[in-house]
Amino acid sequence: MPDHPALTLYVYRGSCTLAAHAVLAHTGLPYKYIILDNGPGGNSTNSRLQAADGSLSHEEFLKINPKGFVPVLAIGEGPNPEILTELPAILIYIASLAQDLNLLGANHLEHARIVEWLSWASCTIHTNGFAAFWRPGRYGDDSHPATMKDIRNRGEETIIKAFAAIEEKLEGKEWAVGDALSVVDFNLLVYWRWWSSERPDGETEAQYPNYARLAKKVKALDGVKKVYELEKLKR
Amino acid sequence: MPDHPALTLYVYRGSCTLAAHAVLAHTGLPYKYIILDNGPGGNSTNSRLQAADGSLSHEEFLKINPKGFVPVLAIGEGPNPEILTELPAILIYIASLAQDLNLLGANHLEHARIVEWLSWASCTIHTNGFAAFWRPGRYGDDSHPATMKDIRNRGEETIIKAFAAIEEKLEGKEWAVGDALSVVDFNLLVYWRWWSSERPDGETEAQYPNYARLAKKVKALDGVKKVYELEKLKR
Repeated sequence: MPDHPALTLYVYRGSCTLAAHAVLAHTGLPYKYIILDNGPGGNSTNSRLQAADGSLSHEEFLKINPKGFVPVLAIGEGPNPEILTELPAILIYIASLAQDLNLLGANHLEHARIVEWLSWASCTIHTNGFAAFWRPGRYGDDSHPATMKDIRNRGEETIIKAFAAIEEKLEGKEWAVGDALSVVDFNLLVYWRWWSSERPDGETEAQYPNYARLAKKVKALDGVKKVYELEKLKR
Repeated sequence: MPDHPALTLYVYRGSCTLAAHAVLAHTGLPYKYIILDNGPGGNSTNSRLQAADGSLSHEEFLKINPKGFVPVLAIGEGPNPEILTELPAILIYIASLAQDLNLLGANHLEHARIVEWLSWASCTIHTNGFAAFWRPGRYGDDSHPATMKDIRNRGEETIIKAFAAIEEKLEGKEWAVGDALSVVDFNLLVYWRWWSSERPDGETEAQYPNYARLAKKVKALDGVKKVYELEKLKR
């Protein structure tokens, strides 16, 4: 597809990069991916991401994305590609290269609903929820155990409240926005995996049947199945 | 403009709703706005927003937006309008109704850059930065003063780091994205106001001259001047 720029996605196995990776695979666009892992010196507060195959140190990764986070999408060939960060932006950009798939809503309002979901997912579910629950040191002094416990508790409350809201929003719906698959559905799979991995087997599915149904449908898509194999994911 | 649905924006004076209000005024689209204030029982952790003129209690507002936050945009007439939340979604929706103004980028990549800015602004600057600094009880147990202090400190660090990043991104640029005014510029004015109100007079302008230049240009737009008058804002 010569009309499309070269795309390289930086991936951390099972992280929120899964949504971007799955949308890329679903579109059928050609792309490369680079798997990152936690380099030496990473801790519960901050990752020190580097290429798993040793081809990129953490310091070299910081030159690509000074924020130090994934996901990162490099757009274009050569030594100075455009670097795009933030999951909502990457999902919307990838989907905009594959307009025939209609992953960005059927009209202005549906498109805004997609941005609403992605924004809420990133700020509330991921940042206030999981990041606080798993990495409380991002939100307070990690040498203070009482602070860490308080932040972690509040993160867990936020996740549980968000999951109840998702369950309600998905009632009677086949997909999150309108009547069609969109980038939101790929994003929602991420949090499903994360929370079900924290809870006893079967509990999440029993508590949130609408959300479970959606997660199962997204996992059954060919592109998603391919990414599960590439990233060796199970749940 | 009969092609456009009726729009009602719920506004809290000086909050991030300013960006949505300013974009609305800039477009020239007809709209209504309802000013909210903190009802009785609000505290540093949670607002209990209600209409300033008494026409809407907090409980009635929660029926409109169960999240309890602003901004909220009601789209359409009648008893059951569409309710859109999350600032990035509202900004993108309003701008999509005024396509001739080109506030959403000149191509797919610029559009993705806009989403990247809005997403980073909401999650990092607003949520991890100002919300933690001003409302630490959202992130931990607010009966524990040490937790509150830790969270507030980390919020302040996040704001300062974000302002340095904004200053660098704006170097040599007239507007945040591409060569044109976009919804991002309106959003950036919000944090400029917030931080300069926390710091001694003139300090923010001296420390961040590129950001100061942008804020001044946005404030000089007719629609923004009008909203400053309506909301009685000074800085």
